Amino acid sequence: MAQLRLALAQVNPTVGDLDGNADLIVEWTRRAAEAGAHLVAFPEMMLTGYPVEDLALRTSFIEASQRTLERTARRLADEGLGALPVVTGYLDRLGTSRPGQPAGAPLNALAWLHEGRVAARSAKHHLPNYGVFDEFRYFVRGDRLPVVRVAGIDVATVICEDLWQDGGPVSVTRAAGAGLLLVINGSPYERSKDDVRLELAARRAREAGCALAYVNMVGGQDELVFDGDSMIVGPDGELLARAEPFAERLLVADLTLPAATASPGTQPVQAADGATITIEHTVISADPVPAYEPAPPPVAEPLDDLAEVYRALVLGVRDYVRKNGFRSVICGLSGGIDSALVATIAADAIGPENVHVVLLPSRYSSDHSVNDAEELVKRQGLQARTVPINEMVEAFERRLELTGLAEENLQARVRAVVWMALSNQEDHLVLTTGNKSELATGYSTLYGDSAGGFGPIKDVMKTMVWALSRWRNAQAEAAGQTPPIPAEIIDKPPSAELSPGQLDTDSLPEYDVLDALLHDYVERDMGRDALIAAGHDAGLVERVIRLVDRAEYKRRQYPPGPKITPKNFGRDRRLPITNRWREPSAG
Amino acid sequence: MAQLRLALAQVNPTVGDLDGNADLIVEWTRRAAEAGAHLVAFPEMMLTGYPVEDLALRTSFIEASQRTLERTARRLADEGLGALPVVTGYLDRLGTSRPGQPAGAPLNALAWLHEGRVAARSAKHHLPNYGVFDEFRYFVRGDRLPVVRVAGIDVATVICEDLWQDGGPVSVTRAAGAGLLLVINGSPYERSKDDVRLELAARRAREAGCALAYVNMVGGQDELVFDGDSMIVGPDGELLARAEPFAERLLVADLTLPAATASPGTQPVQAADGATITIEHTVISADPVPAYEPAPPPVAEPLDDLAEVYRALVLGVRDYVRKNGFRSVICGLSGGIDSALVATIAADAIGPENVHVVLLPSRYSSDHSVNDAEELVKRQGLQARTVPINEMVEAFERRLELTGLAEENLQARVRAVVWMALSNQEDHLVLTTGNKSELATGYSTLYGDSAGGFGPIKDVMKTMVWALSRWRNAQAEAAGQTPPIPAEIIDKPPSAELSPGQLDTDSLPEYDVLDALLHDYVERDMGRDALIAAGHDAGLVERVIRLVDRAEYKRRQYPPGPKITPKNFGRDRRLPITNRWREPSAG
Repeated sequence: MAQLRLALAQVNPTVGDLDGNADLIVEWTRRAAEAGAHLVAFPEMMLTGYPVEDLALRTSFIEASQRTLERTARRLADEGLGALPVVTGYLDRLGTSRPGQPAGAPLNALAWLHEGRVAARSAKHHLPNYGVFDEFRYFVRGDRLPVVRVAGIDVATVICEDLWQDGGPVSVTRAAGAGLLLVINGSPYERSKDDVRLELAARRAREAGCALAYVNMVGGQDELVFDGDSMIVGPDGELLARAEPFAERLLVADLTLPAATASPGTQPVQAADGATITIEHTVISADPVPAYEPAPPPVAEPLDDLAEVYRALVLGVRDYVRKNGFRSVICGLSGGIDSALVATIAADAIGPENVHVVLLPSRYSSDHSVNDAEELVKRQGLQARTVPINEMVEAFERRLELTGLAEENLQARVRAVVWMALSNQEDHLVLTTGNKSELATGYSTLYGDSAGGFGPIKDVMKTMVWALSRWRNAQAEAAGQTPPIPAEIIDKPPSAELSPGQLDTDSLPEYDVLDALLHDYVERDMGRDALIAAGHDAGLVERVIRLVDRAEYKRRQYPPGPKITPKNFGRDRRLPITNRWREPSAG
Repeated sequence: MAQLRLALAQVNPTVGDLDGNADLIVEWTRRAAEAGAHLVAFPEMMLTGYPVEDLALRTSFIEASQRTLERTARRLADEGLGALPVVTGYLDRLGTSRPGQPAGAPLNALAWLHEGRVAARSAKHHLPNYGVFDEFRYFVRGDRLPVVRVAGIDVATVICEDLWQDGGPVSVTRAAGAGLLLVINGSPYERSKDDVRLELAARRAREAGCALAYVNMVGGQDELVFDGDSMIVGPDGELLARAEPFAERLLVADLTLPAATASPGTQPVQAADGATITIEHTVISADPVPAYEPAPPPVAEPLDDLAEVYRALVLGVRDYVRKNGFRSVICGLSGGIDSALVATIAADAIGPENVHVVLLPSRYSSDHSVNDAEELVKRQGLQARTVPINEMVEAFERRLELTGLAEENLQARVRAVVWMALSNQEDHLVLTTGNKSELATGYSTLYGDSAGGFGPIKDVMKTMVWALSRWRNAQAEAAGQTPPIPAEIIDKPPSAELSPGQLDTDSLPEYDVLDALLHDYVERDMGRDALIAAGHDAGLVERVIRLVDRAEYKRRQYPPGPKITPKNFGRDRRLPITNRWREPSAG
């Protein structure tokens, strides 16, 4: 056996910021060196950020990634860090053409950097092409498994989806005789995905017959939130180390691993998916390090479900604001629960002094709404102002004969004009306050409440809006603080307050009933008959399917927001707008 | 040799409307029977419409397509049309699993219907996965080439992309001994694509050594416009028949083709792309029809480039309005060229009596703008009203301190509130009037002029807006009619009229310079150095790249519009919003 101090750099790159991402590599490699690590690994597509979408098709971008990789290798050496091997993801392209894969085709690639040079390279074999992923559009597959000897241990390296699919390079890791399987990832958060990941890592470790290290990026990128959750499991699948999620962390662990025995050179192996994978051995350091006393590795406790979701939303907002160059946000504050939670998330993300809220009372706003909103402002120290909208609404009504929905929507749109004007004047990012239950059913005003740059609770159903609000208040209470959200806001019946005495339940079923149905129809893609068989009311099923199918156009105009479920009305659910399909009636 | 009267049904299905699309099959099969055809062919995915996007992943939708196919076969027989073989596209799924392809996976399928039954089936082999296409996400590939004997002629059938890529079923058509290669298509319009298609068809006919018939759908589907352009070429590539584009047409042609000689049964053949394609022979009618005097087939003249684009825009608007259940449209009319052209296209699409326009003068609107708009209304007989916006703008300004861009945007947003209110009150679809040059550079107001349901000139650059306006006027003059667009509107310098004396050229370069650069950067994906090498001014290149890259978020919120170029800021150009990438500076 031999010892290895492994450092997993769970960091937060920014898409397109090659220089900034290279700086992160140098900075965190220095930290790893200072911690005495023998090897440090960074996430998938670390140099470019992930996902780069159609940037992968720009020649100038690929070339910049290649140049930055070489330059980073030299820079590490120049700064005295060349002796520490670095594994990182980057964007490369195919050098020589293969059948069906032209030279120059983009690769989701991995490199080993050592002593100023690139010591080994490979590319992702299994390309995900479902949900939010479109990698068949961008990349061609790799067919190599680099096995690099570090401190006398053979370390095999693969990328993300290679772990999730059967066959490919992971399936030949055992044949390669690797002592450690190192996986670099850009794996976005979804509820409960941490449990799935751990089980998967444990299973693959047992299959490969060696320890497995998993490093994932962290941070928000448009609709995606990467949660980190980097971990190491032993050859028996036992969890050895785990990083705190939703934060940049260097996970350092002392591992005792089998000393290398494999012979050098390259070796083509038939993989279980029918592909031929070439194992390529490289030696960086053949001799084990002198024996030392290992430190016990950190194992972060998993978060409970609501804590995870809340941290994902906060991180999603913080990074969208920061990475797009904003310093402050603005949103309407109605006194209702949705805008209260959005303001609270924003305050947790970027500080209450950077959160501007506008109270926009109309003739239909209740006194308690205004009071509740003011109380929330006071408790959190938000930047608040009040802009009554009656005069503006009346200026339109003098010229236009509006009734019913047109009149209701007018109020919502006048409010949007106000916060967009303040955004333009003062340079705040506008946050929208719509939740997923509204968004799914079309219960929102296009260019009204749905207008803005980012929707923090876009993927959060109404029942969870309440649950998160209660959870956040309970967290504060447990810490001896005033709960940020007044109880009245959580407890009162929800209303859009766009007409006298209006309640959400005038137009929609109770949210616990609605959300359960939306979950089955949207997330689980159940058809009409299956929904009724699952116990949902038949009339409600008809009605909700019609609402959801008809709201597609509105949803296209919703701004992005942090994704927490499999299907968030963003990139991962793609339906035609012009579409006459209706789920068939029973019979 | 044997004779065949072939009918190609260039029809306009609607996505999701399975019953309506089945009705189209029955109706046009009847027309083909009445024309004495021996075989009639419908486009790719005819029964479901195309593209169905994530509907392909819904089990209930696949099953409905399968049921509708069987029912349509029976219905054709019940209505006395069973003797006429029908080839049509539909959505199917894989029956038994194959390596890497689970049973139940969706198929982009083709069926032969005859005497109440499905006589043969196959699925698309080459799945397009670039530009607007995502077929790797939806479908698994087929591996069969059906060759069906009709009137003593062996007819091989394939689907769309199978024609465009080397290898696959088309490459084994010669080995199959087919007398005719029939290709069913869902191929969207792009400028000059008709020339490319004809060349391709001619080349493939020569390769296959037999005549080739190409039937394409027609009509608008969200951003796509299918132009039809169905055609037949001889074995030497000579054009024999061609349908008028942008209209539903039954192209009927009498062909003299080699009599069948192939032996029945199935035959696996190695195709040029490495796949094994199984040729499956089926006999519907073994004997040639009695000799008859062939009629000369129609050969539609190709349209010139501007005529094609204009008809694509008109069809795109008409179908988006109609298929989404609207009867009328509304848009602002400023007196400028963009809204003038949009109103004219809309009037040509759905009749001037269904086109509502709103003149929304502000303190900065010039007299000539109002006069020019009124003259356009009079010439075309549009439904017009005037809603001055000064009072509404002032109601906001009394409560908010706005300057510069915030003040300019306020006016644009107040106008959008007006037309959205009228849309809600009177149920018109809102048309936006922005052109591609504005959209590319972000020269538009989010939730202002960009607010609406459909953008007729979203993919039309400003220089082409002028060209199309002049072309449309010239058409009218040639027909002895009054030109629909007053010359003053075409000739005056463009202005947003959001501040005193404002001109587009205050913020943007001259449009001929700008559009040429946008073409190279957006459509041709040229990098910074290549743009400068191509002769664009270096300073302008820097500035325009920055504008285009920064406008990504706005463009996400733009409504769909008819696509006429390879990259229309719609489905076919996908970039991250959070993106720090900047084209590297020279040196």
